[in-house]
Amino acid sequence: MLNFDFHNPTQIVFGKNRIADIGKLVPADAKVLILVGGASAEKTGTLGEVREALGARPNSTFNGIEPNPSFETVMKAVEQVREGDFNFLLAVGGGSVIDAAKFIAAAVPFEGDPWTILLKRGSNIKSALPFGTVLTLPATGSEMNNGSVITRRDIGAKLPFRSRHVFPLFSVLDPTKTYTLPTQQIANGVVDAFVHTVEQYLTYPVNAPVQDRFAESLLQTLVEVGPRLLSATEPDYDDRASLMWTATLALNGLIGAGVPQDWATHMIGHELTALHNIDHARTLAIVLPSMLNERRVQKHHKLLQYGERVWGIQSGTDDERITAAIDKTRDFFERMGIPTRLSAYGLAADAIDVVIRQLEEHGMTKLSERGDVTPEVSRRVLEAAL
Amino acid sequence: MLNFDFHNPTQIVFGKNRIADIGKLVPADAKVLILVGGASAEKTGTLGEVREALGARPNSTFNGIEPNPSFETVMKAVEQVREGDFNFLLAVGGGSVIDAAKFIAAAVPFEGDPWTILLKRGSNIKSALPFGTVLTLPATGSEMNNGSVITRRDIGAKLPFRSRHVFPLFSVLDPTKTYTLPTQQIANGVVDAFVHTVEQYLTYPVNAPVQDRFAESLLQTLVEVGPRLLSATEPDYDDRASLMWTATLALNGLIGAGVPQDWATHMIGHELTALHNIDHARTLAIVLPSMLNERRVQKHHKLLQYGERVWGIQSGTDDERITAAIDKTRDFFERMGIPTRLSAYGLAADAIDVVIRQLEEHGMTKLSERGDVTPEVSRRVLEAAL
Repeated sequence: MLNFDFHNPTQIVFGKNRIADIGKLVPADAKVLILVGGASAEKTGTLGEVREALGARPNSTFNGIEPNPSFETVMKAVEQVREGDFNFLLAVGGGSVIDAAKFIAAAVPFEGDPWTILLKRGSNIKSALPFGTVLTLPATGSEMNNGSVITRRDIGAKLPFRSRHVFPLFSVLDPTKTYTLPTQQIANGVVDAFVHTVEQYLTYPVNAPVQDRFAESLLQTLVEVGPRLLSATEPDYDDRASLMWTATLALNGLIGAGVPQDWATHMIGHELTALHNIDHARTLAIVLPSMLNERRVQKHHKLLQYGERVWGIQSGTDDERITAAIDKTRDFFERMGIPTRLSAYGLAADAIDVVIRQLEEHGMTKLSERGDVTPEVSRRVLEAAL
Repeated sequence: MLNFDFHNPTQIVFGKNRIADIGKLVPADAKVLILVGGASAEKTGTLGEVREALGARPNSTFNGIEPNPSFETVMKAVEQVREGDFNFLLAVGGGSVIDAAKFIAAAVPFEGDPWTILLKRGSNIKSALPFGTVLTLPATGSEMNNGSVITRRDIGAKLPFRSRHVFPLFSVLDPTKTYTLPTQQIANGVVDAFVHTVEQYLTYPVNAPVQDRFAESLLQTLVEVGPRLLSATEPDYDDRASLMWTATLALNGLIGAGVPQDWATHMIGHELTALHNIDHARTLAIVLPSMLNERRVQKHHKLLQYGERVWGIQSGTDDERITAAIDKTRDFFERMGIPTRLSAYGLAADAIDVVIRQLEEHGMTKLSERGDVTPEVSRRVLEAAL
């Protein structure tokens, strides 16, 4: 097991009818800017519940945080916070709104150009406004971690940052708030949580049996509830709750503590989103199966363990079992209604050059748990994903 | 899945050579009272490392916190803190020293008689001194939770309390610090963590597949590493690390979030320790197998799942599989060198009356996840454990 630090102070408030708890969680003297994406938080009534819970606290709403929130949009919100003297943020939405809240929270008190927060990956953040979240879309885990990704549309770049100052103070996770989500977003959430887990698990063994089993627990649960979530005619509360809690646990620092981490699939995926606006989870579904196949030697031991424990694959040569595990993975994504080939998104071989150039541009030239995913390897992965 | 709150702000600093990190974790202006049990922390050099890490911070040591720390002892420490104006506590030891630190931290600023902290189970705690821990004995999980148990020897009672104010600020978990432990204490740690997990898992199903699998992950890991830890001629770092992290995760609030909890075995065990000074883990090993057998109907579904997933029991009638699962549990404790019968500790049928009276005295008359473990049921459990 590797040495590690684990610290996650976010308070989770989980279950039915928990939005009213915001009344106790937000400081009494807070002036609150509520951050939302589009119109749905208002339409579903969630925003009304939130405002009711805030009671007499003065509050206003910033609407229009887009998927893969842009630097341009979050800077508008920063301006509104400064002008309105807001001292508390409340993100109501999915990972994009929460990621935006983290940047805004750090940028408001930041001395200097907030753009440098992204250039320095958050290492220059010294303080942040406190903020809470109301999660409506289980997927990214942003509700219980200190990471965020902001996009610069003008240069086609998704830039991650993290800081101990941007953990949410609290996150309200009410599974019933996911009932109105389109099927595609539920499927994206399942795949996103799945790949987050894989990135922290499918590396090389370091004798960390608890971390391995926790990761497998999340994967097994996603395999179990994912197809049910898609085929259900009425939302099932427990399955929604399992997806929500699983997605949170997949990226709150727990399963990655003390083990190597990969993230090559994510870095390549980010470029596909930035260039072609493909949903984050879908880019992961495109890259991961090819990546696992490309690195089947380096990931040999863990791929066998994954095949056996997650997919029940017990017979065949090592090579056959690894192939079967990768096939099962691809098949799972496809069963979730998510195509795993670039061609399904209208992309052909000529798109690959640009992705590779962007990876080089962003310094993503030694990816993976071994640093051995060079641009040349990334190219082979994408070619195999055509 | 049940509604839940999860909040655990303790920072975990895990691995080899991490004690030096205390220098960054303790405030620079701290005046530190170090709390230890006996002479071993000094003898092994751990205390020396701790003092070196504290650097120029003034510090002193309170020695003599006994296993199952007594109200009398912790009150002496409270006096020393008040007289010496210490503003930070550092617990160096196992669960007993850490439990003591929690009480001392809460009692020092407490207005009124600190004894009422125990009478009110901590609900009257309004603040506490900050404190950190250096764990040397993996078992209780106290290093990453806000619970504590203090014993009143004069009335033969172990009294638990909890408060959001008594989470450790940080806990240093260095597996090499367990190398000097006697085998019996390692075995106790394995059994303690095992039963902590079982109390939050072997209840009734609420469709919480992640929590179930996380609990099974911990149990499987203890079954895997436990016997190896006992038979190893040299300490194996990774197995020690797995035990340490597993014991922490078994009682940090994670696996119990959103599921029913039992704790009847613990409450009966506490009385056995208070009356007969039997190690905490050993009392659990005595009570649990009988308890599971007594409540095999109420726990039917989860006992079958436990048998299959933790022990690989797949054939036989339901009743046979449940019996096999309970037998495997008892056998595991015995293989860890821990007898599971009252008679092995010199206790006979005449000891049971007193235990039952104490349970009644302490209001422990409706135990378990269903509140159906009455004194009559507890009596049958103990009779079956003779």
